[in-house]
Amino acid sequence: MDQTQDITIQVFSLNCWGVRYISKHCSQRYDIIADTLLREEHDIVLLQEVWSEKDYLFLRKKLASSHSYSHYFKSGVIGSGLAIFSKHRIQDTLLYRYSLNGYPYMAHHGDWFGGKAVGLAVLSIGPLTAHVYVTHLHAEYSRHKDAYLPHRVVQAWELQQFIRHTSAGADLVILGGDLNMHPQDLGTRLLRSYTGLRDAYTEAQTFEGCEDGLTLVLDNPFVSKKEVAPFEKGIRIDYILFKGSGQADIQCTSMSTTQGSIPGHPLPYSDHEALTVELRLQAQTAMEGGGDSMSTSGRCSEDVAKVVDIVTEVRTEVKVGIHCAERMRSTAARTGTMGLALLLLELAIGAVPWLALGAEQTFPLTSFYLLAVLCCTILLSTSMLYIFYTMELKSLQGTEDQMRLAMGGLQDKLWGCQSPGAQTACSQRKPPEGLEPTLSCAEDQ
Amino acid sequence: MDQTQDITIQVFSLNCWGVRYISKHCSQRYDIIADTLLREEHDIVLLQEVWSEKDYLFLRKKLASSHSYSHYFKSGVIGSGLAIFSKHRIQDTLLYRYSLNGYPYMAHHGDWFGGKAVGLAVLSIGPLTAHVYVTHLHAEYSRHKDAYLPHRVVQAWELQQFIRHTSAGADLVILGGDLNMHPQDLGTRLLRSYTGLRDAYTEAQTFEGCEDGLTLVLDNPFVSKKEVAPFEKGIRIDYILFKGSGQADIQCTSMSTTQGSIPGHPLPYSDHEALTVELRLQAQTAMEGGGDSMSTSGRCSEDVAKVVDIVTEVRTEVKVGIHCAERMRSTAARTGTMGLALLLLELAIGAVPWLALGAEQTFPLTSFYLLAVLCCTILLSTSMLYIFYTMELKSLQGTEDQMRLAMGGLQDKLWGCQSPGAQTACSQRKPPEGLEPTLSCAEDQ
Repeated sequence: MDQTQDITIQVFSLNCWGVRYISKHCSQRYDIIADTLLREEHDIVLLQEVWSEKDYLFLRKKLASSHSYSHYFKSGVIGSGLAIFSKHRIQDTLLYRYSLNGYPYMAHHGDWFGGKAVGLAVLSIGPLTAHVYVTHLHAEYSRHKDAYLPHRVVQAWELQQFIRHTSAGADLVILGGDLNMHPQDLGTRLLRSYTGLRDAYTEAQTFEGCEDGLTLVLDNPFVSKKEVAPFEKGIRIDYILFKGSGQADIQCTSMSTTQGSIPGHPLPYSDHEALTVELRLQAQTAMEGGGDSMSTSGRCSEDVAKVVDIVTEVRTEVKVGIHCAERMRSTAARTGTMGLALLLLELAIGAVPWLALGAEQTFPLTSFYLLAVLCCTILLSTSMLYIFYTMELKSLQGTEDQMRLAMGGLQDKLWGCQSPGAQTACSQRKPPEGLEPTLSCAEDQ
Repeated sequence: MDQTQDITIQVFSLNCWGVRYISKHCSQRYDIIADTLLREEHDIVLLQEVWSEKDYLFLRKKLASSHSYSHYFKSGVIGSGLAIFSKHRIQDTLLYRYSLNGYPYMAHHGDWFGGKAVGLAVLSIGPLTAHVYVTHLHAEYSRHKDAYLPHRVVQAWELQQFIRHTSAGADLVILGGDLNMHPQDLGTRLLRSYTGLRDAYTEAQTFEGCEDGLTLVLDNPFVSKKEVAPFEKGIRIDYILFKGSGQADIQCTSMSTTQGSIPGHPLPYSDHEALTVELRLQAQTAMEGGGDSMSTSGRCSEDVAKVVDIVTEVRTEVKVGIHCAERMRSTAARTGTMGLALLLLELAIGAVPWLALGAEQTFPLTSFYLLAVLCCTILLSTSMLYIFYTMELKSLQGTEDQMRLAMGGLQDKLWGCQSPGAQTACSQRKPPEGLEPTLSCAEDQ
């Protein structure tokens, strides 16, 4: 016998911009954030850029009465900056570190040091198991000349892979965070189409907040005008995405964002706007299994074809990244070889008077040392860069390999969908003998 | 209507010891391995330590007719060394890099450079979805003074986390690889008890091969006698583990290992013995869902209590690792401070004659430069070590946090199991009000 049960949950997501001593009014803003969370008692709070563990511990202490369960995802040198607070028990957690995350020598951008990742928390909400993901992808510093695009696209790929592979047992999937991608960007489309996650902003029955759901707006005093100016009023890069399953039907009843400032407070929470979403779940208990249905639901024909198109586009982007990394690596190798040649030349010049015993050393000693130090510095730094670019290349190539494989699987599915009456046998059906090698050939390099 | 279907699959696993130019007879051995795989046509081949991509490509070319599908998991500077060959279509793959993997300055051990990871390949075997994992954990260089124990335990923790979280939709789970842990080691027990994976060696109806299923034996001419001598005949560190689900009943009909040498060949495949396992699956098609049942099956009371005990033991080990990393980090900080003090002192001494204009420089110039270089080297290396130990510490602490959370979930389950008639409500039941804070207090530091 089936029983239905209605559950309403509120999800809050915010990029806290919590760089101690650098972000403006950091501790004051954490006070305001804590007060709000304590008062509004959302079921699930997803925070990004909580860079200091001390700030997390401060929030945990303040929210002890409203949110009994919390987790801080540790990663990298500084941390992932990701935290979750929940009124429902967190049963289990898992952290997945993205394989690419910018360049260590771009220290002023700082992304590499943050060890960006996606955190998963498994929550028990009544009879349902919710898989809640929180993430923060690599920032976009220039829209027109975006050197980090392949990195962000690979992160989006890894994010969707991680969600798909870890959500098979979930009744309900929620993803919140700062994706640093616009709604129609390649990575966002990949994520939505491949995982089947629905965007709360477009799905919400009622919406209150910034026009077009923008989350980085000119009205916010912390936002750099220069950065947002090319986009008129602002950009939408923070999201709450969700999907249900055979076990739970899910609707987004309302969504709201802050609008640059918060009534009654002198400061906004952050340079990003906060997102609040209300989801209504209709749980069906006393059913068996069904957790897996989600991963194939609504996928046939059109949906799969769409995913195939997007993955093709993503692969092109990753290939551009591979070429770029190869070029950078060979530049590093060439510069290193030059440094080595210079060092050997210097040693040879220095050795001449030493070999012709008794002759005066003509090379000024200070210049000799300085040049040697310079050569060694060049050699050391280019070696490190070479290793770094090799790792980048491996990650990019590895992702490209994964995509090629996934394409094979998708094309199988597509073939299954397109053959009449094959709708239900989608994943079990094999393509005809003739088709398979053609596809493989086209996909192999 | 249920249909049952019998499927037999053969799984092969081998640590190939494929360090080009260092491992003995490397290319000759790859030839032998390729011939064997081509002849014996196992369904799934799981290889470790295929460090060179060229060797993988060689195998792929040779096995093109027997194993149409393959994947090489790329990671780190050198690679993960993991490869899979399959007769069944690989639908999808995912790689999870372990957060800890030895120390970069232990270059002679080399583990850090390998970027150790666990690879997942999703295969379609007839109507069933098999999740096949291949991994290689950090080596144990000394059993009595094992500096890497916390790292290996954290890897075992991450491995079981990854398997549990990604196998919910699988009908069949297979793990093969070199775990570098003995059968009764903490990590092996954790892995088996938490995931419910069964050891092919203990489950096999018939077994042929080395005594006690050993995989590193004195009879193998490549095995270092010194390394294996303390264990009489050898050690068992390579495994094939498996489990079924509600969709597929699974039995291990036979298992075999090579025995130091291979009849008809002058050389063994590797310094490790190869494992071959035959699994018989009884698939039930036309059923819906059920993929999730696996993760909770057979868990109640005794099983959960066992997992709780093991996780407690693992947490202790990780805490030892945390103390150790903290000690190493403060040593690095102290040494760095000394280097800085020495540099400042030197600069002060050097500055005295410069300030007393016209006075002679009493500090010999060569010694001055040498000392400065020494100080700078100390400063640079200790800074890098400090950053490295901080990352290690964060990973260890992060794992410890995950374990604390998981313990809460397990204790919930245990409470659900122990209360009469609560068997089915295991994961839904909440502990009584009084119990929760007590457990939380005991768990919090």
